[in-house]
Amino acid sequence: MKIEPRTLKGFRDFLPKGARKRSYVLETLKRVFESYGFEPLETPALEYEEILSGKYGEEGDKLMYKFTDNGDRKVALRYDQTVPLARVVAQYQNDLPTPFKRYQIQNVWRAENTQRGRYREFLQVDADIVGSYSPLSDAEVISVVIKSLEKLDFKNFKITVNDRANFAGVEPQAILTIDKLKKIGKDSVLKELEEKGLPVTLLDEILSKTLNDKLKTIIDVLKDQRVVFDPSLARGLDYYTGLIFEVEVDGYDVGSIAGGGRYDNLIGMFAGRDIPAVGFAFGFDRLIEAMETLNLFPTDLYTTKVLAAFANSDLQEKALKIANDLRNKNINSEVYPEDVNLEKQLKYADRKQIPFVVIVNENNLVLKNMRERTQEELNFDQILEKLK
Amino acid sequence: MKIEPRTLKGFRDFLPKGARKRSYVLETLKRVFESYGFEPLETPALEYEEILSGKYGEEGDKLMYKFTDNGDRKVALRYDQTVPLARVVAQYQNDLPTPFKRYQIQNVWRAENTQRGRYREFLQVDADIVGSYSPLSDAEVISVVIKSLEKLDFKNFKITVNDRANFAGVEPQAILTIDKLKKIGKDSVLKELEEKGLPVTLLDEILSKTLNDKLKTIIDVLKDQRVVFDPSLARGLDYYTGLIFEVEVDGYDVGSIAGGGRYDNLIGMFAGRDIPAVGFAFGFDRLIEAMETLNLFPTDLYTTKVLAAFANSDLQEKALKIANDLRNKNINSEVYPEDVNLEKQLKYADRKQIPFVVIVNENNLVLKNMRERTQEELNFDQILEKLK
Repeated sequence: MKIEPRTLKGFRDFLPKGARKRSYVLETLKRVFESYGFEPLETPALEYEEILSGKYGEEGDKLMYKFTDNGDRKVALRYDQTVPLARVVAQYQNDLPTPFKRYQIQNVWRAENTQRGRYREFLQVDADIVGSYSPLSDAEVISVVIKSLEKLDFKNFKITVNDRANFAGVEPQAILTIDKLKKIGKDSVLKELEEKGLPVTLLDEILSKTLNDKLKTIIDVLKDQRVVFDPSLARGLDYYTGLIFEVEVDGYDVGSIAGGGRYDNLIGMFAGRDIPAVGFAFGFDRLIEAMETLNLFPTDLYTTKVLAAFANSDLQEKALKIANDLRNKNINSEVYPEDVNLEKQLKYADRKQIPFVVIVNENNLVLKNMRERTQEELNFDQILEKLK
Repeated sequence: MKIEPRTLKGFRDFLPKGARKRSYVLETLKRVFESYGFEPLETPALEYEEILSGKYGEEGDKLMYKFTDNGDRKVALRYDQTVPLARVVAQYQNDLPTPFKRYQIQNVWRAENTQRGRYREFLQVDADIVGSYSPLSDAEVISVVIKSLEKLDFKNFKITVNDRANFAGVEPQAILTIDKLKKIGKDSVLKELEEKGLPVTLLDEILSKTLNDKLKTIIDVLKDQRVVFDPSLARGLDYYTGLIFEVEVDGYDVGSIAGGGRYDNLIGMFAGRDIPAVGFAFGFDRLIEAMETLNLFPTDLYTTKVLAAFANSDLQEKALKIANDLRNKNINSEVYPEDVNLEKQLKYADRKQIPFVVIVNENNLVLKNMRERTQEELNFDQILEKLK
């Protein structure tokens, strides 16, 4: 029986071209996170179901991948990285520094309705500071987000900030409606409030809120024009207890590509006491999409920089030596392993988006620039010079 | 009800200290793989069960994590990276270059008996060349392994090679016994052959095999004294069809830390035709263990290089500025976010294995080397100079 090669709905293969882009973004983010002292944490894909269930509301329990393993244990696949972080903080209390600054970049699984353009396996990129109430920590996580965006070459973006305290006493339904202000406009918000039987005066009440002392301190520390107070920002009905923020990028209006805030009552769930925390997450798929839309990926995201091509079979060994010499100079290079003609080798370079080919002839070397479609005869040292 | 924070048997958390080591090894390996033109590939954690089942023998089907998802699909967790590679090769035939050189570094899940020191979730590190019959490809994968080990600072190791063709016509039971030669010695092998009712002359027959032309070509291309022919090497009852090889490291005798070979009848399983392939895998946990045993990890695997410490609360803001200036010079640095005394900040640095502390005093800066327990008064530029 022939089995059709296919993937599950909502699950993706990342072929080299896409995987390369993901790597580029992840390496950039990791470098920034680590430059601020955030350290890597990894937790298992499978957890005891009791660790995860009931932590994500009704919808979460429904969308979670759960099953019984061979040992009759009820297990579930990672659904986010915050509950595992809470477990880690309780389980290794004495082994972790305080504050504990960790980043975590792993897949999560949710049996979402894929019709809505959602994936069932997707990467989460989280960074959090656990164990600090200081507004300096609030400012730091925003600073990490700003630096990350700058390193990824985003030019025009805005960080809107608010304090969940500004919604104290407001009904959840009203918060959800007001949170949509930017998307649907003032008139629609007023209409929705009315339809829901909520006081329409609420909107103006919320919009008239001003910066409180905590937000002022955070904004003062950051000294960045792009950090803007927005009293209507609510970040849904989340677990936030203080600062909340979101990132909007000019030219990409699908939604915010990062967001976060302070949540002081969540991380202690397994430890049995309140543990403060502040952090953020990048929406990784959105981040990639925004970078595609704004053309922010470097044009030269290749793996191999040089294909050492042989003009005829007798020169394949010489090509191998040249590739090796290039590699020793930290230039990624390879040789086509079969005995084929030059045309086929050039096609391979094209296919793999290799930007340079060194054609190894009997008596000389020719460096071919595959993007500019130019070529010139050079010696090895000159080639090195050109490629540096 | 208080839920105990715990992980499933065979599953591991990697706290920063361990995660840092894993990162160091993975980044080194990726760099080497890419220097030879191997490109990243990622496949989903979950596959249709029919894609995986029956591909790993009876034991594999037993150890595989399988369940029925919310949509009533029979699914299974990734069990290795070779079957997904075969699926990818069939599914995207027209989008991939030939040869297709890919590396893949993802977790796999096997419900192993953890008593044997095995894990149920572990990282696989594979690199393969698909679509080439050339012995140059065989030589290249060995070359990648050698370069990887050198970059990880392994000094004394040996790559034993053989050709599965040397076992043509030999009974599987005899192969398994002879494969144990190095572990149990000649006498025990002869005894086991006898006990199994197999001809004891088989051992000498196998040991008298000499290098065939293919192995000769491969060894000639590599020109490396550490590549040694061993006619008793069989690599279990695997799917290999030509070259097989294993890596032994002096001073670490738990087993080989990498192995691979040519398998020309496997990758075509979904494409419906033979597709040649040659590759290898690092045993990642063993690799880490070997590096621990041989002390190969750099002593300075830190995340934060400098803690900017404030002598009193008024200086915290100045410390923030200095940390930021260091960061802009590509030096990872941070500031303790709460208002605490110097002692507590130094303890934090110790805990996080931060190698340097810059103490920000009213009128000067003091650079403290946390490893050597020395300190000196310096200006910012001198500090930069010291830290470069």
